[in-house]
Amino acid sequence: MIYLDNAATTPLLDEVLNEMLPYLKENYGNPSSIHKLGRQANNALELARKRIANLINLQGRIIFTSGATEANNLALKGLAYVMRGKGNHIITSSVEHEAILEPCRKLESEGFKVTYLPVDRHCTVDPDALERAIDEKTILISIMFANNEVGTIQPIKEITEIARNHNVPFHTDAVQAVGKIPVDVKELGIDLITLSAHKMYGPKGVGALCINNGLTIEPILHGGGQESEIRSGTQNVAGIVGMGKAAEVALQKIDVYSGQVKNLRDLLVSNVLKDITHSKLNGNPTYRLPDNAHFTFLGVNGEDLVIKLDENGIAASTGSACSVQKQKASHVLKAMGLSHEEITGSLRLTLGIHNTVQEVEQTIVNLNRIVHELREFSPYKFKYAMNQ
Amino acid sequence: MIYLDNAATTPLLDEVLNEMLPYLKENYGNPSSIHKLGRQANNALELARKRIANLINLQGRIIFTSGATEANNLALKGLAYVMRGKGNHIITSSVEHEAILEPCRKLESEGFKVTYLPVDRHCTVDPDALERAIDEKTILISIMFANNEVGTIQPIKEITEIARNHNVPFHTDAVQAVGKIPVDVKELGIDLITLSAHKMYGPKGVGALCINNGLTIEPILHGGGQESEIRSGTQNVAGIVGMGKAAEVALQKIDVYSGQVKNLRDLLVSNVLKDITHSKLNGNPTYRLPDNAHFTFLGVNGEDLVIKLDENGIAASTGSACSVQKQKASHVLKAMGLSHEEITGSLRLTLGIHNTVQEVEQTIVNLNRIVHELREFSPYKFKYAMNQ
Repeated sequence: MIYLDNAATTPLLDEVLNEMLPYLKENYGNPSSIHKLGRQANNALELARKRIANLINLQGRIIFTSGATEANNLALKGLAYVMRGKGNHIITSSVEHEAILEPCRKLESEGFKVTYLPVDRHCTVDPDALERAIDEKTILISIMFANNEVGTIQPIKEITEIARNHNVPFHTDAVQAVGKIPVDVKELGIDLITLSAHKMYGPKGVGALCINNGLTIEPILHGGGQESEIRSGTQNVAGIVGMGKAAEVALQKIDVYSGQVKNLRDLLVSNVLKDITHSKLNGNPTYRLPDNAHFTFLGVNGEDLVIKLDENGIAASTGSACSVQKQKASHVLKAMGLSHEEITGSLRLTLGIHNTVQEVEQTIVNLNRIVHELREFSPYKFKYAMNQ
Repeated sequence: MIYLDNAATTPLLDEVLNEMLPYLKENYGNPSSIHKLGRQANNALELARKRIANLINLQGRIIFTSGATEANNLALKGLAYVMRGKGNHIITSSVEHEAILEPCRKLESEGFKVTYLPVDRHCTVDPDALERAIDEKTILISIMFANNEVGTIQPIKEITEIARNHNVPFHTDAVQAVGKIPVDVKELGIDLITLSAHKMYGPKGVGALCINNGLTIEPILHGGGQESEIRSGTQNVAGIVGMGKAAEVALQKIDVYSGQVKNLRDLLVSNVLKDITHSKLNGNPTYRLPDNAHFTFLGVNGEDLVIKLDENGIAASTGSACSVQKQKASHVLKAMGLSHEEITGSLRLTLGIHNTVQEVEQTIVNLNRIVHELREFSPYKFKYAMNQ
């Protein structure tokens, strides 16, 4: 199988699994227990915290969660509830993942006001629009580091400067960026950042909200008071150990992304655009994740394309995995101003450190053939004939 | 090491890990992806649901969570928010786990009224007291199946009958009971039940809220809409697979609990009470989990006891793991009416399917010696001399 859906989830690295295994076997203690087995487990959590802090240059707290969705919910609701006395206005973008948009909608139902900043044709947020949206009631700005569908990297440094000038806390959902491009929370002035283990070759079911200063947030899960009283529940020790190891490896492999992965992606993009007529690349051509290729093939249905690719042993996606199941048209592509036809014909291919030149070449050949075949059955057949 | 802290967490069974491993290796798909690898992952979730339903005779939905704490939060808040129009009164007990008590306190801060039912000396809730507490505003009753500290099994059948007579939904935190004693949610008339994988030889970081009828609950984590729109976030596939396998094994091993584990526990209790003066068993002597032994040794500090046992290779606890770290006096023992001295001298030993007669015999000898030694340094030395 050729796996080109690394933005949905990445395979677990052998070295990550190997480090997890003792915590799935003999080191099974509850980290809250005071006996030796408990202390061992707790020490493992602390090592994971250090490794994650090191990856993103964090001087602050790491709150382990069940994944990025919980971390995003915790960041948004946790901060909004604490700041309610000061104001009720939140600013985000219209191209966030559902795990940001849905908590925002929930907060709107509770009386908060949310501004969803528009993006340009390349999916980029305009810092000036952010500046204009801020008012005296603004308590939180949350803008994703890089888009999960089209790979556009947002101008985070400009955004955090505006946030700091207005003294508004800044959160970023960075699950698609961390491990693929350098993310230095100190240098960038990020207050809260969401990470996910399974997007960087760690296990599913683990994420973290990192808090880079003395910000207070309210818990959303109440109970035994684990994770500094901010996130109760016995920690997923093996999963957290895996996330820590994945963070350590990610730091070492960041060059693989800027080199090998980016080169393969560029090979894929240039050949697809050359070989397949009426195709185009979506997202920012310059400020873009090294692993992301997002195309539109006019006259083709993206879902048919994913199914045909799957039949040919190539795992791809039309957009984010959770949106795909609901068969909703991508809110990201809509916000970018793409037409219905452009959205329908979209395909996301996301590469990883395991992909090879042979796989990419095979994908180009298959994709070319499948797009051709599908267009044969398309009502737009004559409009997008392959030889035009 | 002799591990007698199985109520804090249990070791992962080899057969459970073996079933998880493919989902930590080659079957790494995101269950929301529509390609083959995604469908494989989704099928694995469905098998886990079937196995768990089978264990507790559930005809209803299973919402996978990050553990029991999240499931309890989801049950309490999720139902309370939905039922707000009907009433604002919740009934629970004073001996629940913090993962029930803390969400209740949070709901109280939001205008809900919570009745914390008292318990008797054996930690048993009085069904008549429940009956009296119900009023026309009561929207939820949540009583744990069995207590995590002293092992008392609550009269669930009597409680659910009262709940049904008053048409009030009934939730139970059953993490300590499921897998150790038969729990048939249909026969018992339970509407919502919380399970935890790592309390029944499955992995940490996975739990479930099972809903045994058409009850609607509000999500607490918003996002991509996984788990029937009730719990968003990419599922912890390997963890859920492990929970499913653990459920299957638990059904087969329930007799080990009513036989071997109970016999070892009885051997432990009878010898400890015989050998160590001024000792007593806490909790219900009859309606009691087969794995639980909870003692008071007068004139001894339970924490010192745990530390000394640990030094001698025996893992024990004074109470629930999360409360232990906070060094708070047990709210359970307080509610049972134990004196400060009785609470201070308490020790929880919880057995599992791996414990042996030799381990129990060694524990009895060590415990006897250590209690003796600690009493030598106690201000109560003369009051509780071992030869009295």
